[in-house]
Amino acid sequence: MKQTKQGDIAVTMLAMGLSARVAANALAHLDANQKSAALHAAADAIRAAAPQILAANVKDMQSARERGLAAARLDRLMLDEGRIEAMASGVDEVADLPDPIGEVDQNWTPANGLDISRVRTPLGVIGMVYESRPNVTADAGAICVKAGNAVILRGGADGFFSSMAIAKAFRAGLAAKGVPENAIQLVPDTDRAAVGAMLGGLDGNIDLIIPRGGKNLIARVQAEARVPVLSHLEGLCHVYVHKDADADMARAIALNAKMRRTGICGSAETLLIDRDCAENLLPKIAADLRAAGCELRGDEAARALVPDMKAATEEDWATEYLDAILSVRVVDDLQAAMAHIANYGSAHTDCIVTNNAQAATRFLNGVDSAIVLHNASTQYADGGEFGFGAEIGIATGKLHARGPVGAAQLTSYHYVVRGDGHIRP
Amino acid sequence: MKQTKQGDIAVTMLAMGLSARVAANALAHLDANQKSAALHAAADAIRAAAPQILAANVKDMQSARERGLAAARLDRLMLDEGRIEAMASGVDEVADLPDPIGEVDQNWTPANGLDISRVRTPLGVIGMVYESRPNVTADAGAICVKAGNAVILRGGADGFFSSMAIAKAFRAGLAAKGVPENAIQLVPDTDRAAVGAMLGGLDGNIDLIIPRGGKNLIARVQAEARVPVLSHLEGLCHVYVHKDADADMARAIALNAKMRRTGICGSAETLLIDRDCAENLLPKIAADLRAAGCELRGDEAARALVPDMKAATEEDWATEYLDAILSVRVVDDLQAAMAHIANYGSAHTDCIVTNNAQAATRFLNGVDSAIVLHNASTQYADGGEFGFGAEIGIATGKLHARGPVGAAQLTSYHYVVRGDGHIRP
Repeated sequence: MKQTKQGDIAVTMLAMGLSARVAANALAHLDANQKSAALHAAADAIRAAAPQILAANVKDMQSARERGLAAARLDRLMLDEGRIEAMASGVDEVADLPDPIGEVDQNWTPANGLDISRVRTPLGVIGMVYESRPNVTADAGAICVKAGNAVILRGGADGFFSSMAIAKAFRAGLAAKGVPENAIQLVPDTDRAAVGAMLGGLDGNIDLIIPRGGKNLIARVQAEARVPVLSHLEGLCHVYVHKDADADMARAIALNAKMRRTGICGSAETLLIDRDCAENLLPKIAADLRAAGCELRGDEAARALVPDMKAATEEDWATEYLDAILSVRVVDDLQAAMAHIANYGSAHTDCIVTNNAQAATRFLNGVDSAIVLHNASTQYADGGEFGFGAEIGIATGKLHARGPVGAAQLTSYHYVVRGDGHIRP
Repeated sequence: MKQTKQGDIAVTMLAMGLSARVAANALAHLDANQKSAALHAAADAIRAAAPQILAANVKDMQSARERGLAAARLDRLMLDEGRIEAMASGVDEVADLPDPIGEVDQNWTPANGLDISRVRTPLGVIGMVYESRPNVTADAGAICVKAGNAVILRGGADGFFSSMAIAKAFRAGLAAKGVPENAIQLVPDTDRAAVGAMLGGLDGNIDLIIPRGGKNLIARVQAEARVPVLSHLEGLCHVYVHKDADADMARAIALNAKMRRTGICGSAETLLIDRDCAENLLPKIAADLRAAGCELRGDEAARALVPDMKAATEEDWATEYLDAILSVRVVDDLQAAMAHIANYGSAHTDCIVTNNAQAATRFLNGVDSAIVLHNASTQYADGGEFGFGAEIGIATGKLHARGPVGAAQLTSYHYVVRGDGHIRP
């Protein structure tokens, strides 16, 4: 009986789920050296396959240009020798990270005399759904394998041929070291039905979904997934300049938090500043930002202090610009700043600038975001900066892992209990 | 316009969700002493309300008898002075546990010089769905409040009036110490639609569902919940007697693991024993168990060693009896035992008895269950025995928390980052 295309995809996806589970069961029993050697081999295989990867990328770029993709998206898609080497080096770096599996993160003896250890174990099978950057194929693969997990990758249509070439090399590298190549599988189809199948969990063979891409993708995954999801919908990050802030520090942090890179989730979108210091400080901060090419949109009090500032609307407070635009609001005090963040923030990353330790503590305890910073730029919201080596994403939910997600966050644990013939009275 | 009953429940549940969120936001900012004092006050209020709780319980018992409930369920439902005091003491014990919120469980300085702490925070709103025991109302309430969470409780129809009386006292105790009484809300309805509404997440106002009860309830929650669930469907626990086991220890552990209490999730359901020691040891273990009233069902090899043993079917290996029945299988070696557990187990709690350290390590690393034990009874699968003070359930999933779930497991974390004017290069 001839199957419909839809049916073909469903069957393909279920088979991938089963293969991933088999690979995950094998990966769980590999020791640190085996995983590390296999990842180095994958990195080398990517280097060796550079000609094939570049040829595939030419195909993707051609198709993308024909479809009229914007310059920024074309740039994210483009690979060259340097970017391929960077991708391979990234895999090497993950290979050299400490192995999280088997780590004893707690050990104690309760009153009954048992010796109890909490030991890290792999999660199982990760489903990764992403959009344009083909390097995610290698990054996500490396981080998942490091933590003993298999991964099913579903990249965007834009980078399809590039990702296929990268995954092929990666799998060959793993196989050369005796690690199951199905530890990494790339969905060989760009149909949206494949994503739907993954969100359904593939008959229990996906344990966790990580989406990475635009807001539409994340929202779809959060709404439809029948398995747990680690994600952030947006990074609406705030810099709050408290009245006891050092003026130079506040200027430097505001400028860096907004303008170092405007397109990343940790870039600041709203500046809050205490009324007590706004008159002196806000014009200087505004001048710095404008000199760097940033558009400012302010409330009435801000506009009274900075000439020619566009009025911020209610919508501005709730907008993640991901661009050289900053909304600015003058607040009465710390409490008003925290209320604004609770109301409009996305629980991603928020910062207070102050030399007042008590105010800092109130902010750090009271703002319920994945990352809260005192006297440091929001652009530090990054697994690499946290020392995680690499990250697969940043999570703003409260279950399992929050903040940057690296190999250590893609683990579970179990309790290993050692007795001496203990029976329970 | 007159609303249908279904509509009434939906509106009631959404309102409870909103009230719970407001209470959770307030709870998150209470310090340890406030929460502890409020829980002690709740315990005292339960003691003071003993006459009302007993009167309510008489109503529940009467109705249960009329409906012809089995004796075991009637016993679970019944309250007396002693059980009410035990319930109040349980709340006092949770009150005296260390407060998990604000605890710094990791602190480090990456290469960029930032000071990063991982600090425990509350989860938010917990939805608890349970069946007959009314004491869960107090236990779950105490554990949730301890971790700074609000809880929406939905007890079974059997204990409805008892739970209402307990919750009323608990709320009055919290309110007397200035803690929002809506930290604990009991659904004032036994309609199944209320559970459906909770599983839908109440417009984002339930962060986590914990079901506790029979397999049908757990299966429904796992299948229908649109929010994360911590649960275990069953506890199909194994005792594996390795060839290098001490004979007396193996006998004692097998007997205790099965017969100490047969109705709890940590009781053993299957005994695996190495062929090398079965001839000598299995008849003794079988005699101990039979003397304690246990029925045995064995494979062919076991039946050859123990007279009059019923044949175990394929279904027996997959059955959680929760009764004085044990299935028995003779296995070739450690690997065969681990394969049996991987095939039939429920990833809850499994034990090896051996004096061979290498075999123990292979078992402890290789069996992917929430709790793995060496030379100790599976009946230790209990939050109290782990030193958690109390537990709200045991989880076998791999996301968030695994094994016994106490107050510390009902938390999230966030990263508190301290800089000195750090801007990212």
